[in-house]
Amino acid sequence: MGAAKGKRMPRAVREQQMMDAAVRTFAERGYRAASMDEIAELAGVSKPLVYLYLNSKEELFTACIRRERTTLVEAVRSAITPGEPADGQLWSGLRAFFTHTAEHPYGWAVLHTQARTQGEPFAREVAVMREEIVAFVTLLIAEAAREVHRDPSLAEREVAGLAEALVGAAEALAVWANTTEGVTAKQAATTLMNFAWAGLGNLMRGEPWTPPR
Amino acid sequence: MGAAKGKRMPRAVREQQMMDAAVRTFAERGYRAASMDEIAELAGVSKPLVYLYLNSKEELFTACIRRERTTLVEAVRSAITPGEPADGQLWSGLRAFFTHTAEHPYGWAVLHTQARTQGEPFAREVAVMREEIVAFVTLLIAEAAREVHRDPSLAEREVAGLAEALVGAAEALAVWANTTEGVTAKQAATTLMNFAWAGLGNLMRGEPWTPPR
Repeated sequence: MGAAKGKRMPRAVREQQMMDAAVRTFAERGYRAASMDEIAELAGVSKPLVYLYLNSKEELFTACIRRERTTLVEAVRSAITPGEPADGQLWSGLRAFFTHTAEHPYGWAVLHTQARTQGEPFAREVAVMREEIVAFVTLLIAEAAREVHRDPSLAEREVAGLAEALVGAAEALAVWANTTEGVTAKQAATTLMNFAWAGLGNLMRGEPWTPPR
Repeated sequence: MGAAKGKRMPRAVREQQMMDAAVRTFAERGYRAASMDEIAELAGVSKPLVYLYLNSKEELFTACIRRERTTLVEAVRSAITPGEPADGQLWSGLRAFFTHTAEHPYGWAVLHTQARTQGEPFAREVAVMREEIVAFVTLLIAEAAREVHRDPSLAEREVAGLAEALVGAAEALAVWANTTEGVTAKQAATTLMNFAWAGLGNLMRGEPWTPPR
């Protein structure tokens, strides 16, 4: 326990600590208001050291987005077993998504709220991740439709719209779960499956919702 | 046709034109990058006139948010007939929502993308609207649950989560519809009803989605 005085911390460890401090500061203060002073203080290092390792606030923010994006996608991906029934894959993916966003609230705030709206190139960094997730969900829905019908009646555009709706719902629920006392990741995932999959399931059995009159 | 030269335009009309120009500029450039010069030029008036009517960029942005928020909420509210079955109310509300966001893409971009993320007091201006919409959807879902069960088994928190999911899905679909060639407001509303309501309907009949195994 406790490194001997003067013992150098490995660069990679030190860098992760700075990024932890940066992610939290960006999430709490916003990208523009966050200062390198504040980040250095929270990380317990000098400001020149932060600049030495991470060059500029822009590069630091980009590095934070990429790290948070990678760990989130990896968490979801590793939870899913390809070849399982589509609803099982979605359930596993959603549980992993809500668990990760609950455990990394600052990372989620950086990705969902900060990065998307600070203009380019930051917005693009997150858009890449979102497109990847929408593409994955689109595939899952198309696959599920194939499981049910040999000749799926769900048009490509309809599937794309359903995937957008599902991802939008998941994003909103992650924000809600992180700001509502006592909502667990499993509850959030269950709510979304109830909301979405039971409905998608009907749709794929050829039982869409029909307008009144 | 054509006002006589020198005839003054009523202040209210002139103000709306400036705000139209401002909403478009904020949507396209973002709040920080948008300049009062650009807004004045697009509105076809002098920059001092913009300042004379609307004081500062902050006040102009706030006025834009409030105008767009009011017209959106009014469009949705006036489409709904209280007392109709809950799914009919939701269908009417969603069609009005997607029609309005399609007809006012700059207004939607200001509300959804720009205002939420420029810190206070702007974020609060939009949060008020979102809370109002979530509260309305929460009531609708609770009402629908009462229509089905006398003693509704949907816990209050579950209903709140479902409303968040529905609103998040609608937000994402509005962005998608506005950026995808050929998607109509009616298609977006139908997709969301299929996605959400058929699922909610099952849930309320006591037929939730059940996890595999």
